[in-house]
Amino acid sequence: MGSHKYELLKTEGRAKRGRLTTVHGVIETPVFMNVATAAAIKGGLSADDLRSIRTQVALCNTYHLHVRPGDRVIHELGGLHSFMKWDRPILTDSGGFQVFSLAELRKIKEEGVSFRSHIDGAPIFMGPEESMRIQSHLASTIAMAFDECPPALAEKDYVEKSADRTYRWLIRCKAEMERLSEEPDTINKDQLLFGINQGAVYEDLRIDHAKRIAELDLPGYAVGGLAVGETHEQMYAVLDAVVPYLPQDKPTYLMGVGTPENIIEGVDRGIDFFDCVYPSRNGRHGNLYTGRGVVHINRACYEKDTRPIEEGCGCPVCRNGYPRAYIRHLIKAKETLGLRFCVMHNLYFYNHLMEEIRDALDDDSFGAWKKQKLDTLRENREAEGKTDA
Amino acid sequence: MGSHKYELLKTEGRAKRGRLTTVHGVIETPVFMNVATAAAIKGGLSADDLRSIRTQVALCNTYHLHVRPGDRVIHELGGLHSFMKWDRPILTDSGGFQVFSLAELRKIKEEGVSFRSHIDGAPIFMGPEESMRIQSHLASTIAMAFDECPPALAEKDYVEKSADRTYRWLIRCKAEMERLSEEPDTINKDQLLFGINQGAVYEDLRIDHAKRIAELDLPGYAVGGLAVGETHEQMYAVLDAVVPYLPQDKPTYLMGVGTPENIIEGVDRGIDFFDCVYPSRNGRHGNLYTGRGVVHINRACYEKDTRPIEEGCGCPVCRNGYPRAYIRHLIKAKETLGLRFCVMHNLYFYNHLMEEIRDALDDDSFGAWKKQKLDTLRENREAEGKTDA
Repeated sequence: MGSHKYELLKTEGRAKRGRLTTVHGVIETPVFMNVATAAAIKGGLSADDLRSIRTQVALCNTYHLHVRPGDRVIHELGGLHSFMKWDRPILTDSGGFQVFSLAELRKIKEEGVSFRSHIDGAPIFMGPEESMRIQSHLASTIAMAFDECPPALAEKDYVEKSADRTYRWLIRCKAEMERLSEEPDTINKDQLLFGINQGAVYEDLRIDHAKRIAELDLPGYAVGGLAVGETHEQMYAVLDAVVPYLPQDKPTYLMGVGTPENIIEGVDRGIDFFDCVYPSRNGRHGNLYTGRGVVHINRACYEKDTRPIEEGCGCPVCRNGYPRAYIRHLIKAKETLGLRFCVMHNLYFYNHLMEEIRDALDDDSFGAWKKQKLDTLRENREAEGKTDA
Repeated sequence: MGSHKYELLKTEGRAKRGRLTTVHGVIETPVFMNVATAAAIKGGLSADDLRSIRTQVALCNTYHLHVRPGDRVIHELGGLHSFMKWDRPILTDSGGFQVFSLAELRKIKEEGVSFRSHIDGAPIFMGPEESMRIQSHLASTIAMAFDECPPALAEKDYVEKSADRTYRWLIRCKAEMERLSEEPDTINKDQLLFGINQGAVYEDLRIDHAKRIAELDLPGYAVGGLAVGETHEQMYAVLDAVVPYLPQDKPTYLMGVGTPENIIEGVDRGIDFFDCVYPSRNGRHGNLYTGRGVVHINRACYEKDTRPIEEGCGCPVCRNGYPRAYIRHLIKAKETLGLRFCVMHNLYFYNHLMEEIRDALDDDSFGAWKKQKLDTLRENREAEGKTDA
């Protein structure tokens, strides 16, 4: 299943400092992947911009690209890397999450899921084989297994049946991926398949599922079905329970998570990969992360503020000195440049946070760093008098 | 009225190859100014992006910036250059064109114009002194005189009265600008005032007006009130008639013009400065200029086109090889990156066209170059079977 290497460079408690070498280059972990849903980061960031904010991995969306422009089109064009001119690692999700959250009239069977396109209502069928073929067309570095992501608070009976089916689907994903890697017109024959652990908040189901998927010896494992409505404490409890049953010598990925606090807690529990729409979505709403708390750039107090978003920040927006007053004006005037600046800054903030985490792990000081960082984040939040997403 | 120097480097017929040295740097003419209405080019281009597409002059809009964020705010922040982090020349229009085209309930008197803000309906009064003070707050390199721009086909009686009033307003603009340049809190004491010739399509009125404003010995002169509904032939006839009455040793500016053909014909008739929303607006609609005609990137024929917008183009989008198929996808998926790419390419195309014009003038070959270029543009248009704006 592809030429690659995962090195566990350091550990501190459960926390891992890793390095995944792929055909598209090296990923230093823990890493935050930057969400480029339709082969572009919302807000007008190009592949060049991603290099300037030190993005390691772009995350693209299988479902969205399947319906537009179509994975066959991207395959003909040489895959996502040629399409969007990004030569570093790309992870594609399986499409499952969108099928279960966006699509209407869906019907789940053992074979897969029937549903209608959210764009034109066209009927679509997607199962493990279809998801693998689409992701193979996209030719991402890492493909995710096709799974069902039930609501966090679903009944245990349903979750158990669903997790069993997701396991059976994973076996089919693996077989299809192995078949595709031998096909002559497969662009990335070294595409890596990550399995996904499910089981909602039921620790016994999670552990049983983790044990079974670990036996399949895949290149990496994700914890899915979290950050979908449960509390942070429930999420951390699931990680405490299940991560020990995933192979330590393989990369782990906590899907769709989260706030800076969530990420730090996830790293502490053994997670390598993260992704979340928070930094880009918050950026588009003018909520900007800084080391001293969130700057809500729409507020009147920034109308005449000549400072950059954050003094000393290395992002292209702060480095070039664009003043807060200007960024506020752009957002108010609905100039797309305002969105672009805010999204760039926030993604850089997250990418830089991961650099701090890796540095702390390299220095064997993650525990102390974590305590101090979480204190600062809490103080910032309290100073604001409100909780930020 | 400010430290500056205009050098007439070459002439060929009426065509001028000039160089205007300002406190914000040198402008090589003929030049196309890039329209940054609300202190940003629509489509998400930053000041950094402008440098990458070889913009010489950004054109900002006095009326829009007066109503949002307010010229006093920009003055407190140190002027437009500090606000938008663009350290090269900026020209501000007078606000007159927007007052006469956008604003509702306007009432023209000798003192100036009363109208209501198009954003919140607030009452605003703007006359020559107000326009000069606002532009002084903005601290642009070049300020434009406050004028009335009557419809191209207005009755001669009205146009004559209007041009007379515009002349009286120009005298007041000049006096106010001289006063402002002595004020201690004026940011750019070297701000240059350009007068504006009016008179619609009536050549005798145009010439009479030009003679009178030329006597005021301003740093530059614009031809206004064109590209507002008259034919191209009428516009060229006005330029043929009036430009000889504007000082050859001062920069000339044809406001709001136009297509590549219009610009080439304008240069041939002695124009130094141009501005127009065509390249950015066409870009936002996916209509891309190339040396072989307009590429309508939305068309199905580009769905699988791996070529850049134009082979050999030096713009950042083409140079980085982003494929037409990707740009088409971005526009279809309403990703703002698509707009940004298209606007960057089109503005670069115009900026590069001006470089070609200057090179031809430097080589004393403008006449031959013009003939060939207009032939190519006509052939491209005929091949398309339609006229592009």
